[in-house]
Amino acid sequence: MRTDINRCHIINIGDEILSGHTVNTNASYMSSQLYDIGILTSRITVISDDAEEIRKALDQGIKDADLIFITGGLGPTNDDITKKTICSYFGYGLQFRPDIWEHIKTIFAKRGIIPDEINKEQAEFPDSEEVEYITNYAGTAPGMHIKAKGKHIFVTPGVPNEMKFIMSEYIVPFLKENISDDLYYRDINTTDIPESRLYSILISEADFPFGCAIAFLPQGYGVTVRVKSPGGENGREIVDSAFSRINGLTGKHVFAYDIINPHHELVRLLKENKLTVSSAESCTGGLFSSMLTDIPGSSAVFSEGFVTYSDDSKFRILSVNPQTLALHGAVSEETVSEMLDGLLAVTDSGVVCAVSGIAGPDGGTDKKPVGTVFSGFCLRKSGEKFIRRYNFSGDRLTVKKKSADKLAVEIIKQIGSN
Amino acid sequence: MRTDINRCHIINIGDEILSGHTVNTNASYMSSQLYDIGILTSRITVISDDAEEIRKALDQGIKDADLIFITGGLGPTNDDITKKTICSYFGYGLQFRPDIWEHIKTIFAKRGIIPDEINKEQAEFPDSEEVEYITNYAGTAPGMHIKAKGKHIFVTPGVPNEMKFIMSEYIVPFLKENISDDLYYRDINTTDIPESRLYSILISEADFPFGCAIAFLPQGYGVTVRVKSPGGENGREIVDSAFSRINGLTGKHVFAYDIINPHHELVRLLKENKLTVSSAESCTGGLFSSMLTDIPGSSAVFSEGFVTYSDDSKFRILSVNPQTLALHGAVSEETVSEMLDGLLAVTDSGVVCAVSGIAGPDGGTDKKPVGTVFSGFCLRKSGEKFIRRYNFSGDRLTVKKKSADKLAVEIIKQIGSN
Repeated sequence: MRTDINRCHIINIGDEILSGHTVNTNASYMSSQLYDIGILTSRITVISDDAEEIRKALDQGIKDADLIFITGGLGPTNDDITKKTICSYFGYGLQFRPDIWEHIKTIFAKRGIIPDEINKEQAEFPDSEEVEYITNYAGTAPGMHIKAKGKHIFVTPGVPNEMKFIMSEYIVPFLKENISDDLYYRDINTTDIPESRLYSILISEADFPFGCAIAFLPQGYGVTVRVKSPGGENGREIVDSAFSRINGLTGKHVFAYDIINPHHELVRLLKENKLTVSSAESCTGGLFSSMLTDIPGSSAVFSEGFVTYSDDSKFRILSVNPQTLALHGAVSEETVSEMLDGLLAVTDSGVVCAVSGIAGPDGGTDKKPVGTVFSGFCLRKSGEKFIRRYNFSGDRLTVKKKSADKLAVEIIKQIGSN
Repeated sequence: MRTDINRCHIINIGDEILSGHTVNTNASYMSSQLYDIGILTSRITVISDDAEEIRKALDQGIKDADLIFITGGLGPTNDDITKKTICSYFGYGLQFRPDIWEHIKTIFAKRGIIPDEINKEQAEFPDSEEVEYITNYAGTAPGMHIKAKGKHIFVTPGVPNEMKFIMSEYIVPFLKENISDDLYYRDINTTDIPESRLYSILISEADFPFGCAIAFLPQGYGVTVRVKSPGGENGREIVDSAFSRINGLTGKHVFAYDIINPHHELVRLLKENKLTVSSAESCTGGLFSSMLTDIPGSSAVFSEGFVTYSDDSKFRILSVNPQTLALHGAVSEETVSEMLDGLLAVTDSGVVCAVSGIAGPDGGTDKKPVGTVFSGFCLRKSGEKFIRRYNFSGDRLTVKKKSADKLAVEIIKQIGSN
């Protein structure tokens, strides 16, 4: 980290975030992009489209931070007051800019729409040399780069893909060039061991935390141990050495290193091993295949998946024996095993995987409470099947997510060890 | 809204949110739960596991808000300092509580694990009468309800399902009983009309905003017009009247009212019409079926789905003609039409739907750029097919999400109008 950049604030403006109707993925995107270029966000603040709130957050940002990122409230409607409020805060006027108006008309034309008079307000821009215009090729609200009071303040729309566009095309390149430096860390990805046990193992070493900052990140499918550089000249060597120590101490629970997420790692490993995968999902309802196909290039390893949600569809599509379903239930090792057999028969994939469980809120019994999930996979080459029973905690979506993630982790463990 | 409760702050503590590795779904869950009982969050602050930061956020909360919700940093490891910091802030000591230790051991036993000594710290609790113990049946870190300086401060773990448990079992019931009142609003859900056009239509009425607070919430699949009560005795009547006015003005673009999300509404409508649906997904990779099965009770309307990601699987599973694929491409009206035919043949569902597109980042051409998506559905009874071409903006995940949502919206429009 560069020592001349002390702190970074993200300010998200929008009632829809405060009311809980929109998840603040803008903040996580921005902070992860910043993290990747060595800038750690020190505070994220979400406030409403309210001039007084915006002023207070700006005051705080300018007092505490060197970099301020503001999103939202740049739309054409009456509740969008960010631009006006920022201008009055810094004492700028607003000026109609014909070049921005041309850009807005182009964007509308691409969508086959003629802009309204109301959109003309979006072509107004601060009349100060302190403010640089950032073209928003993905939308009509211009971005702003304000250099004032010794700070850099970046203002983008709240529409995710417009913000992302401005981040990747303007802000990140600018910061890379002018501000950031390496922030070095390594991740050790563990599974089947609780955070407290990991911690106990590590803290029993006399020189813990080995000169580094160590963080334990619970992930649902396991715990990631993050080893962060203390900074300074030998930061990288200190991290690498601590990483080896920790890996040696936790080895049998480690399934990967430095992964972005299990599905990303699974796609990478399948490619590396020239394997393809097919899935049969019951309780996850397609989440496993959706997360796999979130990864660009996944088409090289994923050809098809089946969401066999009803008992009948397990029989029709995968030839699961109705007697198996009647005797052991859809949520059983036996059913998952036959789902795997069905996949081997109807696909060509080298790896087939299947999951069946009770995501809740209903459907639980004493013997199989909500969160009971059977999942596993089979490697066509060896015919070996790996099926496990889980008892996941959490609500419906959490059980789905944990099931989809853990299935990927188990396949990674097996393929990665070959 | 009760006038004696002015403001509410949510403070989320956790480096993993600030680094962008974890999306802050805790804040959106809490704020939506609070919103539902009439409490509008005025600020969400995310800070690191740092005593000074926690103190600053507490200072601000106590100055500005009446209700403060704090999550995170209650784990057993060295980076978890929330409890200690709060105690030192309010001047409390910490005391080992045998009853909490028993609870922790029970939780561990359920997971088949013996607790470590380190977990004993989690059984320490503030020794003040100002702090009430909240049992965390989903985990080991106790919740706290602090009544100090005339404020209510609720502290929960950052693990989502533990936080959710404490919210639903303790905090929300407490607030309902003691604090909240109705916050009345109506939503008009529109599609195929831009926010600026909606705004222009409404603002041309002389008495806009009809005595209400009107918000425009862009949703990817459309814009939701939210009509909020101005408060006071006739708030409900004023909202209902404005709702009718706006509905009359925007009618042909309205596809639903007050929906939670399109898939929720789709499940409701299918149930109401005694219909089932099957899906064939290419670019969405299972996201449509996953979102549908996020809805409890969806098994009544969804039996099976197919993720036909490769050309070959479209042919093998859905009998799409290879010539159609060669001539028109997988991303075409013709292919989607044959995917629908295939679904009609291999399923019994009354509604079948299919989607094929280019989610990016690669695969785009001049004629079919990234974001080009064909999707549609067919009603078995009439045989009618409804297929549309879209040009969605955004990155891979945004295109997937917009495709899955818009497909649901189009089915809703059709079934809802019958």
